[in-house]
Amino acid sequence: MSDVVNPIKYEKGVCLVLNQLLLPTETEYRVRSNVKEMYIAIKDMELRGAPLIGISAAYGLYFAARDAKCQEFDGWIKEVEKEGEYLISSRPTAVNLEWAVKHMIKFAYSLKSRTLQEIVKEMEKEAVKIHFEDGEICKQIGVNALELIKPNMTLLTHCNAGILATSRYGTATSVMYVAKERGIPLKIFADETRPYLQGARLTAYELFASGLDVTLNCDNMAGFLMSQGKIDLVITGADRIAANGDTANKIGTLSLAILCKHFNIPFYIAAPISTIDIATPTGKEIVIEERSSLEVTHWYGKQIAPTGIKVYNPAFDVTPSDLIHGIITEKGIIRPKYVKNIAKIFK
Amino acid sequence: MSDVVNPIKYEKGVCLVLNQLLLPTETEYRVRSNVKEMYIAIKDMELRGAPLIGISAAYGLYFAARDAKCQEFDGWIKEVEKEGEYLISSRPTAVNLEWAVKHMIKFAYSLKSRTLQEIVKEMEKEAVKIHFEDGEICKQIGVNALELIKPNMTLLTHCNAGILATSRYGTATSVMYVAKERGIPLKIFADETRPYLQGARLTAYELFASGLDVTLNCDNMAGFLMSQGKIDLVITGADRIAANGDTANKIGTLSLAILCKHFNIPFYIAAPISTIDIATPTGKEIVIEERSSLEVTHWYGKQIAPTGIKVYNPAFDVTPSDLIHGIITEKGIIRPKYVKNIAKIFK
Repeated sequence: MSDVVNPIKYEKGVCLVLNQLLLPTETEYRVRSNVKEMYIAIKDMELRGAPLIGISAAYGLYFAARDAKCQEFDGWIKEVEKEGEYLISSRPTAVNLEWAVKHMIKFAYSLKSRTLQEIVKEMEKEAVKIHFEDGEICKQIGVNALELIKPNMTLLTHCNAGILATSRYGTATSVMYVAKERGIPLKIFADETRPYLQGARLTAYELFASGLDVTLNCDNMAGFLMSQGKIDLVITGADRIAANGDTANKIGTLSLAILCKHFNIPFYIAAPISTIDIATPTGKEIVIEERSSLEVTHWYGKQIAPTGIKVYNPAFDVTPSDLIHGIITEKGIIRPKYVKNIAKIFK
Repeated sequence: MSDVVNPIKYEKGVCLVLNQLLLPTETEYRVRSNVKEMYIAIKDMELRGAPLIGISAAYGLYFAARDAKCQEFDGWIKEVEKEGEYLISSRPTAVNLEWAVKHMIKFAYSLKSRTLQEIVKEMEKEAVKIHFEDGEICKQIGVNALELIKPNMTLLTHCNAGILATSRYGTATSVMYVAKERGIPLKIFADETRPYLQGARLTAYELFASGLDVTLNCDNMAGFLMSQGKIDLVITGADRIAANGDTANKIGTLSLAILCKHFNIPFYIAAPISTIDIATPTGKEIVIEERSSLEVTHWYGKQIAPTGIKVYNPAFDVTPSDLIHGIITEKGIIRPKYVKNIAKIFK
C-alpha cells in the first residue's frame, strides 16, 4: 500500500485531480467541480487509466445530476443521461467510463420515487462508494496474484496500471505493492510506453516513490531483456476485455505478449471484472482510439520529426486471448477457456 | 538516389560533418579537421551509423597520419596506431570503425618504402576512396534487394540505416531509393527508435525529404501494424554480424525479428560485407554498448522520469540468425546456412 501517491480526492463537494501531465516533476492538484471540467480532465489525459476514468466519470455524472436544471424526474434524468453521453464521448476505448456512467444512471432510476434532492445526495454517496470500492477491488487483485510470484522474481510491466490509473494499489502493480507489504522482494522493469510515456512518468514515479525496486527501460528493450533471461513474468492492465478474453490495452501490449510466447514467459492481464465487456464478443469489435500525431512528433514543444510527416498513433492494441495465460481479477484468476470462464462470472 | 541529404563532405583538407543531433529541425555542418574532433563527433553521436562511422574513422586516421610528429616510419606508425586505438575506443559495437582504422594502418604499412609525405598523401586518397566506394556499395545493396520487393509493398524499418548512416543510399533504405529511381512505388513505416529517435529524426527526415511515402510510428506499434496485415517485409541495417549470422543492431531489432516470425513476415538485414566480423563466432561474443541513462530520462533537457531512477539502456541487441531470412550485401543476398555461406564470401 502506498500513501505517497493519490490521483483523486473528493473533498467538500469537489474533486481534486492530480494533473498527471505534469508528472514526474510536479505534483499539482486541480479542482474539478462540474461535468465539463471532468470531461476535459479525461479527454486531455490529466487523469487516465481505465479504473480512474471510471471513478472520475462517476463523480462527473454526480456533478451533472447536481447541476441539472429540470425539476421533475423525467426531464432531469434526460439531462443527466445527455451529460452521461457527453462524458462517454471523451475517450472511446476504456469500458469503465461507460460502465460508471450507466451504473450511476441506473442507480438514479432505482431511486425514482425519491425527491431529486435525495437522489442527488445518494448519488454523491454512490460516487464516493465507487471510489472507495475501487481501492478494495484493486487490493484483492494483488492478493489474488500472489500465487503467481516468488521472492526475487523479476516482473515487467507496460504503461501505467498503477495507483495513478486507479485510486489505490493499481491493477498490474497491485501484486507489487501487496508483495511489498508482505515482505516479498520483487524486481520490476517498467516499459517507458511511448508516445505518452506513462511508464516513465507515472509507473516509474509511483513505484520508485513507494520504495520498490524499479528499473526503467524503453519499450524496444523488452525482447532483449527476455532473451537474457531477465524477466520471469509480464503483467499489464487492460482497457477493455472482450467476452472471449481478447484484451485491448495500451499500444505495445500485443508485442509484449508475442515476445512472452517466444521466450516462454507467462503473460498476465490484471483488471477488475468491470473491465470485461461481455457485450463485445471479440477483440475485433473493440474501437481503437487514434490520437493526435503531435503526441509522436512533439514533446514539450520540441519537434522531433519532420514537419508534415505522416504518423501512425493508435493508443491501444488488441492481444488475442490465446496469448494470455490468465486474467487476474478481484474474483480470482480467470484461466482459459475464456468464453466459458468469463461467462461464469457474469451469470 | 537522394541529393537532398549528405552526412559528410570532404573539402579542402577538412571534413564537414552534418550534426545529426540537430535534425530534423536544423541542418548544420561542423568542421572536423583532426583526429580528436572526429573522435568527439563519433562518441557524442553527431554522426552515427556503422558505415558512416567507418568513413569518418578513415578520415580521422588520415588526420592522425597527417599530424603525427615522428619523422621516421616506425615511430610515426606507432603514433598513428595509438590514435587508431583512440578512435576505436569512441564506440565499441560497430565493426566498421575497427575495420576502417585497421584498413588504413595496413594501407600505410603497404607503403612503408615511400616517404612519410607520400604515404600521408596516399592515405588521404584512400580515405576519399573509402568514402566514395561506400556509396557504390550501398547502391549495390539496394539493387540486390530488388528481388525481394513488389510494387506497392509496405516495408518497415528501424533506426536509421539510411543515407545519414552511410554516404549515399543507405543500407536498409537503399532498396527504397533504388525502387524510387526505377518507379516502383513502396510504402514505408519507420520505427521512431527510442531512446535516440534515429527513426523519427533521421530516417523519417531523409525519406520524407527525398519524396518517399513514409509514416512514422512508435516502436511499440510494430506488432499491431503486423497483426493488421499492414507490413509485408521488415528490413534493418546492422552494426556487427557474427560469423554465424547472428546480428547486432539498434536495440529493438530483436523484438522486430520475433514479431516477424510470429506473423510470418520476412525479416532481412541489409549491410555491406565489411559489417561481417568473421573473428566473432556468434552473437554472444558481441559487445553491447550501454549508454547514459540521461538518453532515457531526459528529453532535450526536460526530465521525463523520476530523479534517481535506475535505467536500462543498451544501445544494441542481438538477433539470432535463425530469425533472419537473408543478409543483403553488395555481393548478393546471403541465405541460411550462414556459417557456410558467410565463410564462402571471405574465402
